Amino acid sequence: MKKIIIASTSTVYGSDFLEYLLEDLIIFFKSVETILFIPYAKPGGISHDEYTKKVSNAFLKIDKMVKGIHEFEDPKLAIKNAEAIFVGGGNTFVLLNQLYKNNLIDDLKTSVLGGTPYLGTSAGSNICGLTINTTNDMPIVYPPSFKTFGFVPFNINPHYLDPDPTSKHMGETRETRIMEFHKFNTQPVIGLREGSWLAVNGNSITLKGRITARIFEQGKSPYEVSPETELNTLN
Amino acid sequence: MKKIIIASTSTVYGSDFLEYLLEDLIIFFKSVETILFIPYAKPGGISHDEYTKKVSNAFLKIDKMVKGIHEFEDPKLAIKNAEAIFVGGGNTFVLLNQLYKNNLIDDLKTSVLGGTPYLGTSAGSNICGLTINTTNDMPIVYPPSFKTFGFVPFNINPHYLDPDPTSKHMGETRETRIMEFHKFNTQPVIGLREGSWLAVNGNSITLKGRITARIFEQGKSPYEVSPETELNTLN
Repeated sequence: MKKIIIASTSTVYGSDFLEYLLEDLIIFFKSVETILFIPYAKPGGISHDEYTKKVSNAFLKIDKMVKGIHEFEDPKLAIKNAEAIFVGGGNTFVLLNQLYKNNLIDDLKTSVLGGTPYLGTSAGSNICGLTINTTNDMPIVYPPSFKTFGFVPFNINPHYLDPDPTSKHMGETRETRIMEFHKFNTQPVIGLREGSWLAVNGNSITLKGRITARIFEQGKSPYEVSPETELNTLN
Repeated sequence: MKKIIIASTSTVYGSDFLEYLLEDLIIFFKSVETILFIPYAKPGGISHDEYTKKVSNAFLKIDKMVKGIHEFEDPKLAIKNAEAIFVGGGNTFVLLNQLYKNNLIDDLKTSVLGGTPYLGTSAGSNICGLTINTTNDMPIVYPPSFKTFGFVPFNINPHYLDPDPTSKHMGETRETRIMEFHKFNTQPVIGLREGSWLAVNGNSITLKGRITARIFEQGKSPYEVSPETELNTLN
């Protein structure tokens, strides 16, 4: 049975890395001792070691060990044997490119569909949707495809931002961008604001956190959904 | 001899489409009667006809005719015969994808290197650099490559935005993103703020407008350059 947390962000303003999620992660990772961390998204271009150290420090607070996938000789085997998996944020293109390069897409899919708990934040959440076509990241590398896991039957837009009515910047708003996406693609998109996450348990997909999320469906006006809303019919 | 304007944006806050550039466009398009417009970037997903009408209205103010490339049976021939070319903004991925799909990359390159005046704004400027790896746009379609014309020997980041020190949003700043780009790519990037443009005349590349631009070179601290700075040695 799928067991996934798809979080908008790792860090909310004014609090430490993963801090806002730790209470829930205690329950989520209850029967897990060691988490396999995939640091490929390299936020700010930091090394896999540095990133793994940061994650390791955060999980020490709830008594979990963390091992980076780059520390294993065979990353495929590391995924196969993992008790649980965390894919952190950074650049979605860099992350997906490295997963393709190391030929790990199918391994991760098999493992998570088989019930290995998966936590994703930001870029690690983007890849839980059908494609990365709704990432906010800069396309600093060219991955062989934008297709990804499809753990949920829609796309994710993490760090969802409402339009700023005072802005004098002429770039597109997030809403405009997602509505443009629907000129070329049919799948729904969920705009997850910082502090929100999706809890996936088997076929159930529930919005968690304290704030609403914004849903974009092709041909409909965008609308808000409240925490605890079931989203499994969205596809 | 190359004759190119690479503008950050088509529209500055509080003024009409292209208005801030019109004085310069009178000179730039002095000997031109009709401009070939390439509407492929489809801002907000509008139709090629709608977009061409908007551009046509703007150029009427300086007595230029505009024809959309989609109005021609043979787009390759349209480019070959064009007196001047304008590629407008919208989504850079959609634009580049359509150029590849219609097999027009080489035609445009030949034409512009041969001296046909080219005006690009936003997405139309992104494609003047070496790649679209530094676009701000959402990757709503997957183009066959991120490589583009290389009319200038570096990358463009249009609508360059300075970090907002009051922001509580945890997403990356533009500067962080471009510095991440340099973990994977070597070419310089020029952050063009709204209201700025590059004027390319043969081998000369000059910053125009009233404000500074921000230059990012791999392994160096970013720095500002003033209007009228020659940038042809940046590569």
